[in-house]
Amino acid sequence: MRHALIFFFLFSLNVSFAADPLPSWNAGPAKDAIINYVKCATNDGCPLYVPPKERIAVFDNDGTLWSEQPAYFQLLFALDRVRALADQHPEWKTEQPFKAVLENDYKSIAASGKAGLLKIMAVTHSGMTTDEFENTVRNWMKTARHPEKQVPYTSLVFQPMLELLDFLRANGFKTYIVSGGGIDFLRVWAEDVYGIPPEQVIGSSIKVKLEQRDGKPVLVRQAEINFIDDKEGKPVGIHRFIGRVPVIAFGNSDGDLQMLQWTDRRENTLKVLVHHTDAKREYAYDRNSHMGRLNKALQEGKEKGWTIIDMQRDWKRIYPKPAKD
Amino acid sequence: MRHALIFFFLFSLNVSFAADPLPSWNAGPAKDAIINYVKCATNDGCPLYVPPKERIAVFDNDGTLWSEQPAYFQLLFALDRVRALADQHPEWKTEQPFKAVLENDYKSIAASGKAGLLKIMAVTHSGMTTDEFENTVRNWMKTARHPEKQVPYTSLVFQPMLELLDFLRANGFKTYIVSGGGIDFLRVWAEDVYGIPPEQVIGSSIKVKLEQRDGKPVLVRQAEINFIDDKEGKPVGIHRFIGRVPVIAFGNSDGDLQMLQWTDRRENTLKVLVHHTDAKREYAYDRNSHMGRLNKALQEGKEKGWTIIDMQRDWKRIYPKPAKD
Repeated sequence: MRHALIFFFLFSLNVSFAADPLPSWNAGPAKDAIINYVKCATNDGCPLYVPPKERIAVFDNDGTLWSEQPAYFQLLFALDRVRALADQHPEWKTEQPFKAVLENDYKSIAASGKAGLLKIMAVTHSGMTTDEFENTVRNWMKTARHPEKQVPYTSLVFQPMLELLDFLRANGFKTYIVSGGGIDFLRVWAEDVYGIPPEQVIGSSIKVKLEQRDGKPVLVRQAEINFIDDKEGKPVGIHRFIGRVPVIAFGNSDGDLQMLQWTDRRENTLKVLVHHTDAKREYAYDRNSHMGRLNKALQEGKEKGWTIIDMQRDWKRIYPKPAKD
Repeated sequence: MRHALIFFFLFSLNVSFAADPLPSWNAGPAKDAIINYVKCATNDGCPLYVPPKERIAVFDNDGTLWSEQPAYFQLLFALDRVRALADQHPEWKTEQPFKAVLENDYKSIAASGKAGLLKIMAVTHSGMTTDEFENTVRNWMKTARHPEKQVPYTSLVFQPMLELLDFLRANGFKTYIVSGGGIDFLRVWAEDVYGIPPEQVIGSSIKVKLEQRDGKPVLVRQAEINFIDDKEGKPVGIHRFIGRVPVIAFGNSDGDLQMLQWTDRRENTLKVLVHHTDAKREYAYDRNSHMGRLNKALQEGKEKGWTIIDMQRDWKRIYPKPAKD
């Protein structure tokens, strides 16, 4: 009798999962659009059918797969690195923009502009081997906490999107990240957190140089930009890394507009924007935000009938439940 | 009775295939090294075991997966394109290196050096959209013939390597091309010919620019080099595109040495060189060849105990059997 009950329980769980692959999504037009698209794309008799090898789905990262407020998390990583390296750089006590970082003077950091940002990125992202950089990112991810939510950054990924990634992969889609963020920053944790392997992560990069150290080859990160995978760079990155036009594209900002337009070259594709409308559970912002500004893309998405996710309306929960011990 | 015979025949075929996944390879140290490596890498109890997601195998293309004499096939494509475009460029009749190409004056083409080559590459590889370039390559592949062997270029792939690619994929390895050749040239046919999808092709590239034409986004190929995926560029390309160190690497020239050394950073990897020793069935060349020079890598491979394929000794056949009607 007890076994029969357990069996019945497992069976009903299984059925409900099969019936709803996106349990953290509320019923509504966004969920319907996604499920209907995938059902048809994987059904050989359907007009939207997509052969398995063309099932490429691309996702922006910041603001699409995880939060991006109060600033891109990679920028917060860079600021933490300046603090961690300050002992080795006594000159930073008087030199901008480092002085501002060490004094938590965010107004002056912002005022230092692009030139200041590039200085911060250069000292925190170059000069070391790729192995050393990976270790630094890995350790930071373990120990750092989000300044407002006081939780590890990797717990600020969107639960509905994790379910979606699984759902797409279960239906034969290859899931890619196409991010303006750094490719080598993302790859350290994307496989554990999203199930997306390094070879399916596309991002911005700096140049690297092959050198010999202790008789072994290493790649040393150079203070020179190689590629910016944002705006018009996203179709370029997709072409260069994947060499096929995707059939599904998810973004959340004007930086993703060209990626969605590029996907729209093909017929029968799914273009989706995540609209941050939930000030209570996450953040609410669009056309006036410094991070993840969503203006032109929202306008064009509405005109062209792209799917627009209203986070407050469409998502039952935002973040994964904390793991229990 | 007839059915029983057919059944028996199919069964025995099946068994012999299972027994020998590399039927075009002669028994010997190269074949043994490959099969033993794969057996152990896929056996959880073996000291060389490699978890599935780390099973990355990289292959040079020219001279490793197909022939590269009397010149890299992409160079022969470029010369054919100069001839095809000559009507639109009457000035080429007097302008070098185009005059030399149109007069089949290979000595003068060679004498035009790197500057001449870049001029030829610029007019044949840039100025068009990526779609247009793909169509041009696709049409050329269908109609062009190798100047000496008088067969389509895609029939000059190495049958033993096709079997190897299948064998590795059947054992959970992801097979990648890492070529000094052009990524967009390779991707057009690599999937049909090698079973390697565009997203697993790494190669040299020129810059592309996003433009709008007839209200649709296109990428226009620019006459500016973006990345040279050769020599010290190969570890850079592998890092940038794959983000993992491979466990298997195949090359045939000094241009592959850094890729094999990069693979050698990891313990328990398989490094293989294809040595072109068969003047009768293919070509014989190494340290004195202008295309695919093999000198330093052969020396280092011997010293370090890498596997060296002697094409004459190790390969039962070189090219696939022609398809029968």
